[in-house]
Amino acid sequence: MTTLFVRDATLDGATVSVRCEDGLIAALGDDIEAAPGDEVLEAGDAILCPPLVNGHTHAAMTLFRGYGGDLPLMRWLRERIWPAEDRLDAEDVYWGTRLACLEMIRSGTARFWDMYWEPEAVARAVVDAGLRVTVGPPLLDGDGDRGRPRDAAETSLELAGFHERVGASIAPHAIYTVDETSLRFAAGFAAGHDLPVQIHLSETRAEVEECVREHGMRPAAYLDAVGLLGPRTLLAHGVWLDEGELELIAERGATVVTNPVANQKLAVGGVFPYPAARDAGAAVGLGTDGPGSNDSLDLFADVKAFALAQKHAAGDAAAISAADAWDIATGRRAPLLGARPLAPGEPADFLLLRAAASELAFGELAEGLVYSASGSVVDATVVAGLVLMAGGAVPGAEEVVAKARERAARIGLG
Amino acid sequence: MTTLFVRDATLDGATVSVRCEDGLIAALGDDIEAAPGDEVLEAGDAILCPPLVNGHTHAAMTLFRGYGGDLPLMRWLRERIWPAEDRLDAEDVYWGTRLACLEMIRSGTARFWDMYWEPEAVARAVVDAGLRVTVGPPLLDGDGDRGRPRDAAETSLELAGFHERVGASIAPHAIYTVDETSLRFAAGFAAGHDLPVQIHLSETRAEVEECVREHGMRPAAYLDAVGLLGPRTLLAHGVWLDEGELELIAERGATVVTNPVANQKLAVGGVFPYPAARDAGAAVGLGTDGPGSNDSLDLFADVKAFALAQKHAAGDAAAISAADAWDIATGRRAPLLGARPLAPGEPADFLLLRAAASELAFGELAEGLVYSASGSVVDATVVAGLVLMAGGAVPGAEEVVAKARERAARIGLG
Repeated sequence: MTTLFVRDATLDGATVSVRCEDGLIAALGDDIEAAPGDEVLEAGDAILCPPLVNGHTHAAMTLFRGYGGDLPLMRWLRERIWPAEDRLDAEDVYWGTRLACLEMIRSGTARFWDMYWEPEAVARAVVDAGLRVTVGPPLLDGDGDRGRPRDAAETSLELAGFHERVGASIAPHAIYTVDETSLRFAAGFAAGHDLPVQIHLSETRAEVEECVREHGMRPAAYLDAVGLLGPRTLLAHGVWLDEGELELIAERGATVVTNPVANQKLAVGGVFPYPAARDAGAAVGLGTDGPGSNDSLDLFADVKAFALAQKHAAGDAAAISAADAWDIATGRRAPLLGARPLAPGEPADFLLLRAAASELAFGELAEGLVYSASGSVVDATVVAGLVLMAGGAVPGAEEVVAKARERAARIGLG
Repeated sequence: MTTLFVRDATLDGATVSVRCEDGLIAALGDDIEAAPGDEVLEAGDAILCPPLVNGHTHAAMTLFRGYGGDLPLMRWLRERIWPAEDRLDAEDVYWGTRLACLEMIRSGTARFWDMYWEPEAVARAVVDAGLRVTVGPPLLDGDGDRGRPRDAAETSLELAGFHERVGASIAPHAIYTVDETSLRFAAGFAAGHDLPVQIHLSETRAEVEECVREHGMRPAAYLDAVGLLGPRTLLAHGVWLDEGELELIAERGATVVTNPVANQKLAVGGVFPYPAARDAGAAVGLGTDGPGSNDSLDLFADVKAFALAQKHAAGDAAAISAADAWDIATGRRAPLLGARPLAPGEPADFLLLRAAASELAFGELAEGLVYSASGSVVDATVVAGLVLMAGGAVPGAEEVVAKARERAARIGLG
């Protein structure tokens, strides 16, 4: 049994230690001691903190960074991304995902939701890196052999038993790339096999207009009509959702994951209506989107971008508090995402933040985390009781970067 | 004479070394050698890069971080900032500024423009930290004893000979806090003593409306009418400038410094019209604004926020390129800011960026710098030929943080 003892961290101003057994928190408090044989991590007053949750990404797209990122969306996709994706194989996806995992470990993300080709390679990379993922291959119509609904669904199902840190999902790409028959199939398959669903929804205004024109209703209502809007549905983006849709989403218990940086970088033109989502009672999470359209995986940057975009859009500096934004970034406003509290019996996933970091040393901690800090304040990342980073160092990091560069070069990038 | 030899850095794909003598670059190339007695810094293929320039801040406000940053602007000022500023003394400003300098060194900023109380303490802190600053105390009417125009101007003048890395400036606070007589006085004083001018301009819509109502013209025209719009004028914010104002600013050779993060955090409601400024030929720089309203001093975050805000506002992912944004962040689009090229005979100010940083290892370097990187990619910061940081370590950092925390506690913050 793997055991870990983290000595003398700071939690809510008090000094606490944490003992982990077999991937879970066995004890947390000021009066616990290490047992013989425990691996010991001296926290040295570092701040004990829940990890961040990246609710939407395409992790392997680290390989596509810096590759035409200032082009208009359709030119970027047609001239750069799609031709390069045609050249991707499983090993490319594996190393692109490993690189993403490395950057997530460094910046305090323990868990992410991923939609990408070669999902078995994604899952392998995540397991090898030590993180947690909910993964699914894009399911779509009309892209040749790739993504065919039945194949994609079967591939998802095969991943269900892959590893305890890997969750499988059904991932219909979007309502404009998957026809109604296939959406209904995806809904039935997900329900039949008890799998969550992730889908891009309401990212661009054109998508909304096309949906209304073709189906006579807005995207969330259409998703509901085809049976895909439920408590295990994750909707990525949601930029153009209106109040009625947000009420429906809340009623069905679905989760919206906002991707503020990617929305701005791709210039979709709108801002996710968080105040309306909050008022409707909808579950909300935060994502980076793929590193080709962000291009960072440091969620500390995205939680700040989220809060700033909300203040800007509302014309009100008080539109969202740092504490709210931080809760969203750590998955506490969306149970579907899988984050759990720091408590005995729960998964041993947590961060240690450098106590000496001046970004966190003044005023309210939540304001420091959201407005001052970057991922570089993370000193240690622990997932399932395993120390993935300590003292800012991730074992094997150089090999991961070198291999990812080789794979990018292989497909003509890098 | 102080000499430094930086061996084997990477510049535009080639390996180069840099030799610095007495604050200047003496030689730069692939065929130079260290001289006996040179301090040697092994770059190990790190990327040689110009430093960033923070065109507008109130550095000592590090002490005010996390202190009501989600309040609406006027409540934040009236309930938190102004009462705390009333308690500030020169030592508070010194240590608040030292902390800001520490964070700027870590994130690659070599030079900044500062407007704050106790400017002599600001200047001392900057000199002790090793950076460069153009400093000036706020000049304003009606704030009791503080900022009285003649006193402020005389204080600025006294700083003119303070140190070779300190520039003095006249800093009228804004057109809504300084009356016309005092603005004309500031213009005359600056011209008479050959000092640059820095002023907040067109930050809020209310300021523009009030200016039009009271003076019958928009802010830039009013500034021109009182003699303050010239080639040595720095205008902070410029959110609401219209095309006519931008043409006037370009004609007069003045510089606009945009502060995208602070504008969003304070929810001013608009975005600096960069495309119009570029089309008019206006000089443009980038600033963080004070760390109480950002709250970071890492300009890598702000250059990304700038590019994203421009793409979002234009509804066009191609509205600004990473290379353009990076040039603006390094001061290359605004000669007034003082940045100089990396070349023999020029000031020895430069950065070494970690070659192994995966954020910079894929695709175009400019895209990596703007979209993927944070300040944590900076490995070494050299200013005036002095190594202020190497291997990510700044000597004396812990004392600076500790002292700043003491000062914040003294004035009832922290």
